[in-house]
Amino acid sequence: MTTTTPRPTPAETEQGDPRLDADVRLDVEHLAHLLLGHYPELRLGARRLMADERFHRIEGLPLAEHRDRVLGQLRLLAAEGDVHRSFPVRFGGAEDHGGFLARFEELGHADPSLQIKSGVQWGLFASAIYHLGTERSHDQFLADALSVAVPGAFAMTETGHGSDVAAIGTTATFDVETEEFVIHTPFRAAWKDYLGNAGQHGTAAVVFARLITSPAGKPRVDHGVHAFYVPIRDPQTMEFLPGVGGEDDGLKGGLNGIDNGRLWFDHVRVPRVNLLNRYGDVDADGTYSSPIASPGRRFFTMLGTLVQGRVSLDGAAVTASRLGLTIAITYGNQRRQFAGAGNDEVVLLDYAEHQRRLLPLLAETYAAGFAHEDLLAAFDDVFSGRNDTPETREDLETLAAALKPTSTWFALKTLQTCREACGGAGFLTENRLTSLRADMDVYVTFEGDNTVLYQLVGKRLLTDYAKGFKHLDAVKVAQLVAERASDAARFRTPLHRAIQTIADVGDVRRSAGQLRETDTQRALLVDRVETMVAEIAQALRPAQRADAATSAALFNGQQHAIVEAARAHAELVQWESFTAALARVDDPGTKQVLTWVRDLFGLTLVERHLAWYLVNGRLSAGRARTVTSYIDRLVSRLRPHAQDLVDAFGFEQAHLRAPIASGAEQTRQDEARAWYRAQRASGDAPIPEKHTR
Amino acid sequence: MTTTTPRPTPAETEQGDPRLDADVRLDVEHLAHLLLGHYPELRLGARRLMADERFHRIEGLPLAEHRDRVLGQLRLLAAEGDVHRSFPVRFGGAEDHGGFLARFEELGHADPSLQIKSGVQWGLFASAIYHLGTERSHDQFLADALSVAVPGAFAMTETGHGSDVAAIGTTATFDVETEEFVIHTPFRAAWKDYLGNAGQHGTAAVVFARLITSPAGKPRVDHGVHAFYVPIRDPQTMEFLPGVGGEDDGLKGGLNGIDNGRLWFDHVRVPRVNLLNRYGDVDADGTYSSPIASPGRRFFTMLGTLVQGRVSLDGAAVTASRLGLTIAITYGNQRRQFAGAGNDEVVLLDYAEHQRRLLPLLAETYAAGFAHEDLLAAFDDVFSGRNDTPETREDLETLAAALKPTSTWFALKTLQTCREACGGAGFLTENRLTSLRADMDVYVTFEGDNTVLYQLVGKRLLTDYAKGFKHLDAVKVAQLVAERASDAARFRTPLHRAIQTIADVGDVRRSAGQLRETDTQRALLVDRVETMVAEIAQALRPAQRADAATSAALFNGQQHAIVEAARAHAELVQWESFTAALARVDDPGTKQVLTWVRDLFGLTLVERHLAWYLVNGRLSAGRARTVTSYIDRLVSRLRPHAQDLVDAFGFEQAHLRAPIASGAEQTRQDEARAWYRAQRASGDAPIPEKHTR
Repeated sequence: MTTTTPRPTPAETEQGDPRLDADVRLDVEHLAHLLLGHYPELRLGARRLMADERFHRIEGLPLAEHRDRVLGQLRLLAAEGDVHRSFPVRFGGAEDHGGFLARFEELGHADPSLQIKSGVQWGLFASAIYHLGTERSHDQFLADALSVAVPGAFAMTETGHGSDVAAIGTTATFDVETEEFVIHTPFRAAWKDYLGNAGQHGTAAVVFARLITSPAGKPRVDHGVHAFYVPIRDPQTMEFLPGVGGEDDGLKGGLNGIDNGRLWFDHVRVPRVNLLNRYGDVDADGTYSSPIASPGRRFFTMLGTLVQGRVSLDGAAVTASRLGLTIAITYGNQRRQFAGAGNDEVVLLDYAEHQRRLLPLLAETYAAGFAHEDLLAAFDDVFSGRNDTPETREDLETLAAALKPTSTWFALKTLQTCREACGGAGFLTENRLTSLRADMDVYVTFEGDNTVLYQLVGKRLLTDYAKGFKHLDAVKVAQLVAERASDAARFRTPLHRAIQTIADVGDVRRSAGQLRETDTQRALLVDRVETMVAEIAQALRPAQRADAATSAALFNGQQHAIVEAARAHAELVQWESFTAALARVDDPGTKQVLTWVRDLFGLTLVERHLAWYLVNGRLSAGRARTVTSYIDRLVSRLRPHAQDLVDAFGFEQAHLRAPIASGAEQTRQDEARAWYRAQRASGDAPIPEKHTR
Repeated sequence: MTTTTPRPTPAETEQGDPRLDADVRLDVEHLAHLLLGHYPELRLGARRLMADERFHRIEGLPLAEHRDRVLGQLRLLAAEGDVHRSFPVRFGGAEDHGGFLARFEELGHADPSLQIKSGVQWGLFASAIYHLGTERSHDQFLADALSVAVPGAFAMTETGHGSDVAAIGTTATFDVETEEFVIHTPFRAAWKDYLGNAGQHGTAAVVFARLITSPAGKPRVDHGVHAFYVPIRDPQTMEFLPGVGGEDDGLKGGLNGIDNGRLWFDHVRVPRVNLLNRYGDVDADGTYSSPIASPGRRFFTMLGTLVQGRVSLDGAAVTASRLGLTIAITYGNQRRQFAGAGNDEVVLLDYAEHQRRLLPLLAETYAAGFAHEDLLAAFDDVFSGRNDTPETREDLETLAAALKPTSTWFALKTLQTCREACGGAGFLTENRLTSLRADMDVYVTFEGDNTVLYQLVGKRLLTDYAKGFKHLDAVKVAQLVAERASDAARFRTPLHRAIQTIADVGDVRRSAGQLRETDTQRALLVDRVETMVAEIAQALRPAQRADAATSAALFNGQQHAIVEAARAHAELVQWESFTAALARVDDPGTKQVLTWVRDLFGLTLVERHLAWYLVNGRLSAGRARTVTSYIDRLVSRLRPHAQDLVDAFGFEQAHLRAPIASGAEQTRQDEARAWYRAQRASGDAPIPEKHTR
């Protein structure tokens, strides 16, 4: 791997203090390889393909042309792109689920619209046929979905129901006379909405609807949400089929290469076999059957097969953050502004505030990247069948629900800070930061609204907490929860002993050193999650004996705390992944620098939640001050390695495509400084007025 | 004033607990009038004009058409819009500086591009002629600038120099032979860049360049940055004039109705009288003169005349935040998601987390609005001449430098949170939140990069701090600074006594009540600013005796703290403005609700910086916990008033133009609920599968 990023010589970063840790060298190639994770060849291959300008976004294209271009790119990908890896061998795939996502995550360099349109076609539409259907469904529908002969919509969300899929209004009523399902939209709020491929290109959709049967002589039964394959447009005329209607969602805040739209159905009939029948089926006489008896568990199992969307968005967010930081740090290493102590102006990245804005984000990007690789591995373990149990599936879903919000929100913050750090140049579309941010915006609310996902995580944390008491009766549980909570408050858990030692050490310098220790960071982060969960459990205790309204009010009162506990859990997961990754680094210099990066991430988390640590007595005021000063030290230590750390992300100019990160700024700075040097040397420079008095 | 926003009946907000403070009623019209500030008629008039669809942004227009439309709107404004208010009466104006800006701030409803293109034409180009020129310049250039006969660029920023205007490279060398200035760009980094009207429409520019004279027989002298009127394009052909060149900046992250671009000059000659000569002039024989002897003070005086840009952006940011919150809160009051305790789904704004995300932003928007009105009044006092002294000018510049970063960053955060709170609907361009945010993005780095402005504020705070010691010798100063710093640390200042009482009260309920008290909030906020400044001053003390490099390093080490101190100061200013505004409220119910809003703002600030208060011993851990629980109480208290609080912003549907805030969502929800009610009543509803066992 070679990097094409120009960089200043050490002498040019004079305020970075190159003497500090002068012997520590980061091995960029070694680190770059580590960052490629479990699928280095697949990722590099996808990046090579994405360096092809046929896949590159052309900024400023009118909506219609951008959409057409992306559809064309999808067909190119189908032909050249190895995009069927996760599908069965008989359909040209390799049953390689993790590899499929790893490739997918690299599409964002070229155009996030291409990435998400691919996600709609293969990750949602074709994957729903694959995962929710049986061989019958595969034989009927899968080949055309994979080849993009049928561009398809994934019609789950309704205008009136986003995150609450269980409450959708669309119905699919079985007509035993004709052996057909009648797909129907009962009211405006039940229109399907925000669906990629629905606005313009889609000729079919996987439609989620409540499956309703009326067995002979019995009342009608609602079997809950199931998925149906429904043709929506005539592929020749591209007109809606009879009974189908819709609207184009039009322009969006980003991702305008995708034709999102709305669909409605007026008693549209599809054959019985268009039900994707892996988790529920209706036979010719209208009898419903399912391999999963509980309607609730069946619903969550069906939705669970779609976890790959969240996994892949986590990876896409990491890629976007890496792109943004590579652009901003490269520019910040070349751009100069305001006079320094000598003749030259100061390189932006030598300003403490510039470092403070960008380097903690770099540390967090590293953490998010390592955590994502672990998530991808867990995903592949489950979906490959190597380790597919209800428990591992549930763990995978929780992990995805924790990481996707964390990394997508983080990507927005990072891209915005990068754009600001590049000033006016950062606002120009040619430098990509604003478009990347605009495209990433919807990642925080689609495939599960981030706030809703955090609540799922929070509930899982509470469930796990409660499990410890499963064998006890209600009174005992109440006592134990109370004890645990007060335990936490009184610092009697083993975790606290590790932390307590920090509080007991008087010397500030030494205590900063302790904060650097892996066990101390872990103890601080783990303790926070556990204590928060225990406190929420304690607060929710009365809900068990309350009526529905009181219980709902109690839960609502804890909603903010639940969200924050989930966030704390996700941050801990990222930190653990980073820490585990350190063990995989062989090169000592690289390991040293990465350990500082990990420390910066860990301490950034502690600083972010410093009030919590102080309020709960985990850190003394004196110790808390050392957190910030230690972060300052880490930041200036890492400053000389900043360019190496972004170069290790391995992007070529064909991926960056931002003039300010191309070396043009260095050329401009060199020219200007040479001009002033020559003028000074000539003796012909005008005299400043103040020197004439 | 009537509002057109539909709202749920009290019974529909069942979780908002309407029993709480049931007798407190907000008088929307009274509050709306208060919010119109010093210029109610001007603002209402501008809003009426902006309700005209000729001024409305059409989303999705190609770049060229959007630019043309906005130029046409500018000419409409020149004809109808009372946009010359700040200019001399003989040019059709009224010398009404504050009123000029108040009108300007209302343009953003229609299209921020229109607002900023107006700002370029009248606020920068024409205002530079007016404020930096003399009657000579006005007679020559002003009429055509005001009528948009000459669209003009404000050519200050260079590719290589944004915030550091003093370091620009463009030169204007006086040629005594021809009595001309020779405008020249010596190297690529000195190209003028990011200039509105430079990309396409501008036929002239006010060019900032270093004025260089070479008096007969003497060395050349650089008199620093001055402004020159330079024709750049042939108004017939729109080709660049000889010696002038440039590039279009192309697409940007927002504001694409404005043609930003780059300009360069290759020995372009302009007559001597094209120098805007109020603060510096060159006579026919090349002798330089200025009413301000010090080149440094002259430079800052010239730049100081441009403060109105920052003042107006502060107001524009407030308007954008108000628009965003009106859309999101109106939608959040109608949209339902997830089943509640009864048959109905829960209104989004009844969720605690939704309240927690939106209502503190609403409180901060109120604070920013009141602070802006005070800034506008200070601006008008200075520019009207009523109170124009070097001190009041400096105060005005500091206030603008404090508030513009605070409100523009806040607007980005607010618009993003609003967009997320509206889910997928928030991402659709038709609902305006993403476009508003994209347009506002550059506000945080133009007209002074926010981080740089905060540093100006921080330096002013340090200067004021040092002034207290002016009459003392160096040793005494050092002692006093050290004493003050340790004083602060030891809580011996009078401020602390007020706070100390909080720490001394054991009862949590009562201490929360104390946090509600105006004096307590003020003491907490003031104390933080003062202590931060004292600590920085203490840390910088060695800089006085150090060499330049050491001194620069010391200052760099405090850069982050200086930025944070400035932010703390700005927050305090906003809080003080809000508190002062409470005294102007007559209606008791309105006063009560607004006081809760002010408390929410104050406590939100304390919570945001809770770690500081704990680390510095200003709040005990127990007291700190009450901050968060008191915020929770305030939020649920304010929830029933949320719609009134946004309705008081006074926007009509013609200003909002967001379908989700039009009542369409309420209609959809009502239809869906009616459908389910009818189905339940019919006895024909399908039976859920789980009830069949």
